[in-house]
Amino acid sequence: MRTATLGITLALLLGTSTLADAQSWRPPADGQRCPSKWGAGDERGSANHMGRESVLRATKLIKTGEHIELAHVLAADMPFFGTRRFDVHTKRTFLNPPANRRGSNEEVVIGEMGQVGTQLDGFAHQTIGDSLYNCFKQDQITTRTGFSKLGIESVGALVTRGVLLDVAGLKGVDMLPDTYEITVADLQQALQRQNLTLQPGDAVIIHTGWGKLWGKDNARYMKSCPGIGVGAAEWLARQDPMLVGADNVPVEVSPNPDPQISAPVHQIFLVVNGIHILENLKLDELAAKRVNEFAFVMQPLKLKGATGSTVAPIAVR
Amino acid sequence: MRTATLGITLALLLGTSTLADAQSWRPPADGQRCPSKWGAGDERGSANHMGRESVLRATKLIKTGEHIELAHVLAADMPFFGTRRFDVHTKRTFLNPPANRRGSNEEVVIGEMGQVGTQLDGFAHQTIGDSLYNCFKQDQITTRTGFSKLGIESVGALVTRGVLLDVAGLKGVDMLPDTYEITVADLQQALQRQNLTLQPGDAVIIHTGWGKLWGKDNARYMKSCPGIGVGAAEWLARQDPMLVGADNVPVEVSPNPDPQISAPVHQIFLVVNGIHILENLKLDELAAKRVNEFAFVMQPLKLKGATGSTVAPIAVR
Amino acid sequence: MRTATLGITLALLLGTSTLADAQSWRPPADGQRCPSKWGAGDERGSANHMGRESVLRATKLIKTGEHIELAHVLAADMPFFGTRRFDVHTKRTFLNPPANRRGSNEEVVIGEMGQVGTQLDGFAHQTIGDSLYNCFKQDQITTRTGFSKLGIESVGALVTRGVLLDVAGLKGVDMLPDTYEITVADLQQALQRQNLTLQPGDAVIIHTGWGKLWGKDNARYMKSCPGIGVGAAEWLARQDPMLVGADNVPVEVSPNPDPQISAPVHQIFLVVNGIHILENLKLDELAAKRVNEFAFVMQPLKLKGATGSTVAPIAVR
Amino acid sequence: MRTATLGITLALLLGTSTLADAQSWRPPADGQRCPSKWGAGDERGSANHMGRESVLRATKLIKTGEHIELAHVLAADMPFFGTRRFDVHTKRTFLNPPANRRGSNEEVVIGEMGQVGTQLDGFAHQTIGDSLYNCFKQDQITTRTGFSKLGIESVGALVTRGVLLDVAGLKGVDMLPDTYEITVADLQQALQRQNLTLQPGDAVIIHTGWGKLWGKDNARYMKSCPGIGVGAAEWLARQDPMLVGADNVPVEVSPNPDPQISAPVHQIFLVVNGIHILENLKLDELAAKRVNEFAFVMQPLKLKGATGSTVAPIAVR
Repeated sequence: MRTATLGITLALLLGTSTLADAQSWRPPADGQRCPSKWGAGDERGSANHMGRESVLRATKLIKTGEHIELAHVLAADMPFFGTRRFDVHTKRTFLNPPANRRGSNEEVVIGEMGQVGTQLDGFAHQTIGDSLYNCFKQDQITTRTGFSKLGIESVGALVTRGVLLDVAGLKGVDMLPDTYEITVADLQQALQRQNLTLQPGDAVIIHTGWGKLWGKDNARYMKSCPGIGVGAAEWLARQDPMLVGADNVPVEVSPNPDPQISAPVHQIFLVVNGIHILENLKLDELAAKRVNEFAFVMQPLKLKGATGSTVAPIAVR
Repeated sequence: MRTATLGITLALLLGTSTLADAQSWRPPADGQRCPSKWGAGDERGSANHMGRESVLRATKLIKTGEHIELAHVLAADMPFFGTRRFDVHTKRTFLNPPANRRGSNEEVVIGEMGQVGTQLDGFAHQTIGDSLYNCFKQDQITTRTGFSKLGIESVGALVTRGVLLDVAGLKGVDMLPDTYEITVADLQQALQRQNLTLQPGDAVIIHTGWGKLWGKDNARYMKSCPGIGVGAAEWLARQDPMLVGADNVPVEVSPNPDPQISAPVHQIFLVVNGIHILENLKLDELAAKRVNEFAFVMQPLKLKGATGSTVAPIAVR
Repeated sequence: MRTATLGITLALLLGTSTLADAQSWRPPADGQRCPSKWGAGDERGSANHMGRESVLRATKLIKTGEHIELAHVLAADMPFFGTRRFDVHTKRTFLNPPANRRGSNEEVVIGEMGQVGTQLDGFAHQTIGDSLYNCFKQDQITTRTGFSKLGIESVGALVTRGVLLDVAGLKGVDMLPDTYEITVADLQQALQRQNLTLQPGDAVIIHTGWGKLWGKDNARYMKSCPGIGVGAAEWLARQDPMLVGADNVPVEVSPNPDPQISAPVHQIFLVVNGIHILENLKLDELAAKRVNEFAFVMQPLKLKGATGSTVAPIAVR
Repeated sequence: MRTATLGITLALLLGTSTLADAQSWRPPADGQRCPSKWGAGDERGSANHMGRESVLRATKLIKTGEHIELAHVLAADMPFFGTRRFDVHTKRTFLNPPANRRGSNEEVVIGEMGQVGTQLDGFAHQTIGDSLYNCFKQDQITTRTGFSKLGIESVGALVTRGVLLDVAGLKGVDMLPDTYEITVADLQQALQRQNLTLQPGDAVIIHTGWGKLWGKDNARYMKSCPGIGVGAAEWLARQDPMLVGADNVPVEVSPNPDPQISAPVHQIFLVVNGIHILENLKLDELAAKRVNEFAFVMQPLKLKGATGSTVAPIAVR
C-alpha cells in the first residue's frame, strides 16, 4: 500500500496517473531474465546455495539439540486448493505362511503429492506463458509422466540458516487480516525487532498466523490469505535466499490487490528468480518459542519430473 | 536366540544335525514381548531415541559440511515388490488470465507411498497374527483409510549418529552373493575393521552392495537378496538402535534360509522390538567415500495412519 | 419370513406384542443356505436367469424402439458413501508429429468403480462373517488385487423383462418419506395397480422417488432413505428375480428399523439368495412415462475380481 | 480419397511414381469440415443415428436370443498403450456390528478408464491441432477434470444393426499380417462374400484376427497391427456408420504406411467425420460362429467429460 501511495505521490509530482502501474506488475520478457544468474541450463536455482558452507552455517546454530517440526500431518481433511486430493486406502492385510503368522499391511496413496500439505514448489510448477525458469520451454520439457527438466528430484536436501520473520508478532496479532499485503517495511521492521539481518542462502520463513486456521476452518484458510506482495517479493529476491516460506497457501497475499493478475509472486520467485517457495508451513510452535534463527533442514522427495514435493522440514537450535 | 540355542542343545543331545533348526525362529507370544520397553501404549518404539541428545551427538560429527544423499529417485522404472506402483500423471497446464500469463502445472501421484522407493517401515506395516508392536490389535486400529494407532505420522524427523557397516567391503566384494545371510560375526568384524562401536540410538546402515542393481537389473534386485538373518537381527536389536537400514528391499536376507517362515526380521524389528527399518537405501557414494560415521538425518512424511513413508535421508559429516 | 411368521405366531400364542421381533432378522447358518440353488460352486446366482429365453422375453416387449436411460452421470459431485471417490484427471495433451498435427487427450480415472454411481453389486461385495454367496470363504478368495471367485467379470450382459414397481406412485407422492420401509403389501398393491405379475428372471425395479435428491441434496440422499425391508426382500427373493434395483443408495430402507443390524437386505439378496442388487438408478423418466414393463438391458464392466460395477442400463419398449 | 485419386492422376501425368503420396493424407482445414453434417454445436456425431429406428432395426435381427460378448476382461495383465494402467486395489473388509456380522468389501480402481480395454473413443480424444470435432477448440473446452463439451457422457446407449466384416476370413487366415493395410476392396469383397450391404447407422465391426494375441503376446499386440488405412476409412465414413470397431488397438493399420503421419484414421473418424471408434474388441466367438449380422448393443459409461469409456458390448441374434 505504501508503494501505491508513493506511486500516487510520484504521479502527482509528475502530473501523470500511475495508479494502475504503481500497484501492478507484469512479467518481464525472456531476454530480461535469462540466462539465470546461476548460468544457462541451470535447473536448481536457489538450491545452488546448498553446500558445505550453508550446512556449516546451519550447524553452528545448533546449541541445545531441540528440534521443532514445521509440517502439518498429511490427511484427507487438510485444506485443499481446487480439486486436489490426498487419499490413503488401506489395502487388505496379506497373510503369510502359518509358521510365523506374518501379517503385512500397506496402503495406496493418491494425490497431488507435489502440491498438497506442507510443500515445496519446484520450477516446473509455474510459467510465464510457455516459458519457465531459465527459459526452459513448456512444450520441450513436459511429458504425460512429468517434466524432463526442472523436476523436483534435482533439488535434494536443503540445510541452511533459517530466519523467522514474525510479521504477526510485529503487528501484535495472532493472525494478520484476511487479505493483508505484507510490505518491504514490514519485513525490515520484523528483522529489526528480532535484531537479525538476512544473509544470502537463508531459508526465510514468514509467520502470518494464518496457519491457525489449518484443519479448523479450511474454507477460510483457502478463500484468501495475508502474505507478501510484489514489492516484498522483489525485495526478498534481492536478498538472495535459498527459499521463502510461510504459514499460508501461496506465501503471497491472495487474491493479489491487482485484480488483473494472479499469483505474481509465484512468477517472481519461481520463474524470474529461480527461488523455491515453501507453502503451508506449521509455524505456531516456532513463533511461540520465538525461535528466530535456527538450522533449517528439509528433504524434498525425489519425485521424478514433479512440480514440487510434500515435505516435513524441521528447525533445530 | 534362545530358540536357536535350545535347538543346538537338542541337536547335541539327539546326535543329529539341526542346522536348519538352529537358524530358524518362531514368533514369541504376546506376553513375552508386551508391554514394549518404551511403555504400555507407546507407538514410537525406537524413534523415542530421537531427542536433544541424539541431535547433539549427530551435530558433533559434522566437520566439513559435506552431505551425501542416501535415497534413490522415485520413478515408475524403480524395482517394485508385487503389484506396487509409483506413477506420476502430469495434469493439463492451467492457464491464468492474460495480464500475467501464469501457467500452472501439477501432477497426480499414485502409489504405495509408504512402501515404495527408499522407505521407512512403521509399526503398522507388520503383525504377528493379529497383533502388532506393543500388542496393538489389528482389528482395533485398522480403518479403510489408515491406522488409528502406529501411523507413520507419529515418527517425525530422526537425527542421530549414523554408522555404516560395510559388509561388502569387509568381504572384499562389490556385492554380496544373491542370498548371503549376514551373521553376527560379519557385523562385529565390520565394526572392528572400521574401528567403531555401536551406541544405543544409532542409525545402523548396512552396505551389501546389492543397490548396484537398482534400475540396472530390477528383476534380480527383487528376486532375492543378501541381508541380515535372524541371528544378526536379534544381536542388532540388543544394541538398541534408532533404526536399521540397508541397500536392499527388506534389510534381511531373502528368501529366509528357513523355508517355513517369511521375512522374520521384519517381525523381530517391527513387531517384537519396535525398531524401524529403512529399505532400498542408495549407499554407493557413502561406501565409496568410506564415510563410516556421520550425522544421519531423515524426515518421514507425516502420512496419517500409514504403514511407512518414502524418504530421502542424508548423511552429513 | 419364516422367522417373522413364527414370531407372529408365537406372539399370538403368547398374547404379547412382538412387532420389533417380527421385523428383525438374523443371518442363517451356512448349512441353511449352501449349496446355492444354482449348484455348489456356482458364482453367478441370479445372473443364471440370463439366456436365450430371457432375451426373447425382453425382445417381445420392444414395440416402439424408444429407450430410456436409467443411469446418472458419473461425476465428482455425485453423492458418495463414506470416503468413496470418483475423480477424473485430464492428462496433458500429447502432440504428435507436425504433418497431421494430431493432438491426443486422455484421463486418469480414480474411484471405487464397483461401488459408485449407478452400480450393480456382485457377490464379493458382502459377507455373513467370513462366508459369502454359496459359502465361498473370504480368506480363500480375496487378494490385494481383487477376488479370485465371485468377481463381477463373470456376470456379463443382462437382458430380460423389466418391471417397474412404482411405490411412490402407489402412495401418490413424489418421494416416499425419509425412512419409509416398503412392505410386501406395498409391492403387491403396486403390481395390482399396474396390472402386472412378476415372473422368475425379471429385473425388478422399485421407484421410491428418492432419486430426485441426486445432485440436488446429496447430504439428505445419503443420510437415510426409503426402501424395502427384510419382509419385502424375502418375498421378492421368492419371486426369483434376475436382480432388484431402486433409485436409492442401498435398495433397502436405511437405517434398518432394527438398530442392531445393518443392511440386512444386502445379506438376504447377495449372500443368502445370490440375487444381484442394482443401486442409485435414475428412474424419473421411466416413472413419469409410466413405463411399467420393458426390455431391461445392462452391461456390467468386466472388472476382474471386483465387487461390483458402475453401469448404464436402459429400458427399451 | 479425392486427394489420393488426384495424386495418382498427377503421377500418371507426370510419369513419376507417387505411391507414397497416393497413400498419404493431410488433415483438412476447419472450414472444410465444419459445421458437422449434424449441425453446428452438435456433440454426438454418429451417435445421432441412435433412435427408435436403429433400435427396431436391431430388434428385428434377434431370432434365437443368443448373445455373444464382445469385450475382454479388464485386468492388470491386459496389453496397454504407453504408461496406461488398470489397477484394482482391494480395500480392507469393513466389519459391521455383531448382530448380523455383515462384512463389506470394495475396491479402488485406477486407470485411464476411457482408454483401456475394450473401449469406445469419444470426440474429445483427438484433435487436428487445437481443433476437435465440429471445430470445438481445445483450450475452450478442456479443464483439469475433463472436457466441458464432447464428453463421453453425452453418447448414451447405442443399439443398432451390427455387421461383421470378416477380412481375416476373406483372406483365409487366422490373423492378418502384422502391418497389413485393409483396403476398400477388402471391405467390399468381405461384404460380397457375406452377401451383405452396409446401411447408414450400422455398427461396422472389422475382424482382423489380431485379437488372438490379447493376453497371449501383449508385446506383439501393441507393437503394430493390421487395420484399415486412410482409403478404407474414407470409404467407410461415406457409408455413414454409427461406429467402426475392430479387434485391434486403433482400428487402423499401425504404424501408418506414411511415416510422416500418425493415426490419421483417428482424425478422419473422430475429428473430421464425427464417427465413433470401438477398439480392442473380442471377436473370436462372433467370427467363429459366422454371426455376420446382429443386433449390436453397447452402453458406454457416463464418465463426465471423459475422452472415452471402457465398454462391454454384445451381439444378439
